[in-house]
Amino acid sequence: MKIAIDTMGGDLGPVEVIKGAYEARKEKNFTPVFIGKVEEIEEGLKEFDFGKDVEIVDAREMIENDEEPALTIRKKKNSPIVVGANLLADGEVDSFLSSGSTGALLAAGLFIVKRIEGVERAAISVFLPTAKGKALMLDAGANMDSKPEYLLNFAIMGSIYSKEVEGIESPRIALLNVGLEEGKGNKLTKEVYELLKEADINFIGNIEAREILSGDADIIVTDGFAGNIALKAIEGTAKTLLSEVKKVMLKNAKTKFGALLIKNELKETLKHFDYRETGAAPLLGIRKPIFKAHGSSDYLAYKNAIFQVIKFSEKNVIDNIIKFGG
Amino acid sequence: MKIAIDTMGGDLGPVEVIKGAYEARKEKNFTPVFIGKVEEIEEGLKEFDFGKDVEIVDAREMIENDEEPALTIRKKKNSPIVVGANLLADGEVDSFLSSGSTGALLAAGLFIVKRIEGVERAAISVFLPTAKGKALMLDAGANMDSKPEYLLNFAIMGSIYSKEVEGIESPRIALLNVGLEEGKGNKLTKEVYELLKEADINFIGNIEAREILSGDADIIVTDGFAGNIALKAIEGTAKTLLSEVKKVMLKNAKTKFGALLIKNELKETLKHFDYRETGAAPLLGIRKPIFKAHGSSDYLAYKNAIFQVIKFSEKNVIDNIIKFGG
Repeated sequence: MKIAIDTMGGDLGPVEVIKGAYEARKEKNFTPVFIGKVEEIEEGLKEFDFGKDVEIVDAREMIENDEEPALTIRKKKNSPIVVGANLLADGEVDSFLSSGSTGALLAAGLFIVKRIEGVERAAISVFLPTAKGKALMLDAGANMDSKPEYLLNFAIMGSIYSKEVEGIESPRIALLNVGLEEGKGNKLTKEVYELLKEADINFIGNIEAREILSGDADIIVTDGFAGNIALKAIEGTAKTLLSEVKKVMLKNAKTKFGALLIKNELKETLKHFDYRETGAAPLLGIRKPIFKAHGSSDYLAYKNAIFQVIKFSEKNVIDNIIKFGG
Repeated sequence: MKIAIDTMGGDLGPVEVIKGAYEARKEKNFTPVFIGKVEEIEEGLKEFDFGKDVEIVDAREMIENDEEPALTIRKKKNSPIVVGANLLADGEVDSFLSSGSTGALLAAGLFIVKRIEGVERAAISVFLPTAKGKALMLDAGANMDSKPEYLLNFAIMGSIYSKEVEGIESPRIALLNVGLEEGKGNKLTKEVYELLKEADINFIGNIEAREILSGDADIIVTDGFAGNIALKAIEGTAKTLLSEVKKVMLKNAKTKFGALLIKNELKETLKHFDYRETGAAPLLGIRKPIFKAHGSSDYLAYKNAIFQVIKFSEKNVIDNIIKFGG
């Protein structure tokens, strides 16, 4: 199995990506195809010896997060995202992992690798840490102005993914909404509720944004606009509060000493809310496996992401989506 | 000036409400008209002597937060919310403050007190604590499936409120959206962006949900669906994280001692994110002043809420909305 791995997207640089693949290879069999600046990759490979079972593809153009996705993938043909998507579309690799711009990765998936026939839209999915584990939220921002059928597709694709890759027997699917009762919400969520009720999935009803982190749902279905708002509200609040707590701890000698006494336990607890534990997110609805890793992933995050990619392929998630999702 | 005050909506009971009014009366001149169970109010008035300048109106039916608002205000005619709205509509009082069900309060405002002519929809507004102070977000859930014009109204009403009551000379108004650039978002936000650009307000562009707590905007305009999702995502994340931090602190003897050393400073910092500091929220778009206080308000919160109500009347906010908002 060949896995294309973008070495340029991560905040920690190419060596961290290569180290992740190296650690993954100790446990699983695959051929990494590193895409990025060849001299940087070769430098990294000196440190981590893959033997002969490794490939390098040069791609040097950097896509920034604020670039218009559809435009930039047409312009920057020599970026790892475009090169990786082309390798995947051409069958040169079996899957593609990147921690670059989510929008550009999705655009490359849609325009180069193409959407699964019968699936109306592809979604950006994201794993959120919860009090009990993690939840997959989709769509986190790929589609504005969604139709009800899109969200039905998201629910079915998410369900298949959770069952096959995460090993959850009957994933609990909830609809992000402003209230718990049936009949709550806007026109879209009211219509989606009806569709989800009829679908062959474990639909548990509406979930309010307040309960996203509760862990009561395995999959949270939403339109891309509301999903993006929810995701960023969670991120922003967590960041603000944790930085306030940190500031308090560094305030004076007394608080610094106090912080020292709780530091380890606090780290241990907050680790649970760490992206490295929740893993990479699949771009569901694309014809071949594309995974987005968090930009600040370290080698452990990449290692776990590679395991997800392998399982995704082994379990034929896409064949299952083609069978049930259309 | 007569202010109707619901003594039944608060989590801490009627005495806390009455104490708040008592403290407010030390500094400002007004006649409180307490609405609730007469025997409870009389009990409270033994503790806090208002002299003769106080009125009591009996209303005994409790409206729960999960009741369907439009239905319950038709059914529970003897609830403080319905009684208070009727007093306000009939001109018996000048304004109405309640910490009961937001939905029921809005419904009573719309059906009994009525909407300002020329304003397309009334909004639920909410103050969010930010790193630099607070921000007024509206609509936080009154209107699903909003039209662009509604949000323009919200922006204008919020601007007038912030200027007159909060004393902000040129309130910075931002549109909640999935990206900063013009052209981002769904059909609604794209159209609203155009309207806000043209309006005679200090429109500073889009804001992402991640930055709501940054304090870069004084007013955050959104449709009721997305606003409700953002609000509850923030609340849920804050609650989850702070409860995790608390759990860590109580873990063992060492962490308990550590917690003791940072407790005061932490409280001081988090106080800033306290609803009591941010105050009650006006129901903007209703013909007369109605304010919603937080359910868990203590007497200080009620005291501050009463000051807001008084300022709102003194500054003729509603006349200004009629003049500019239509």
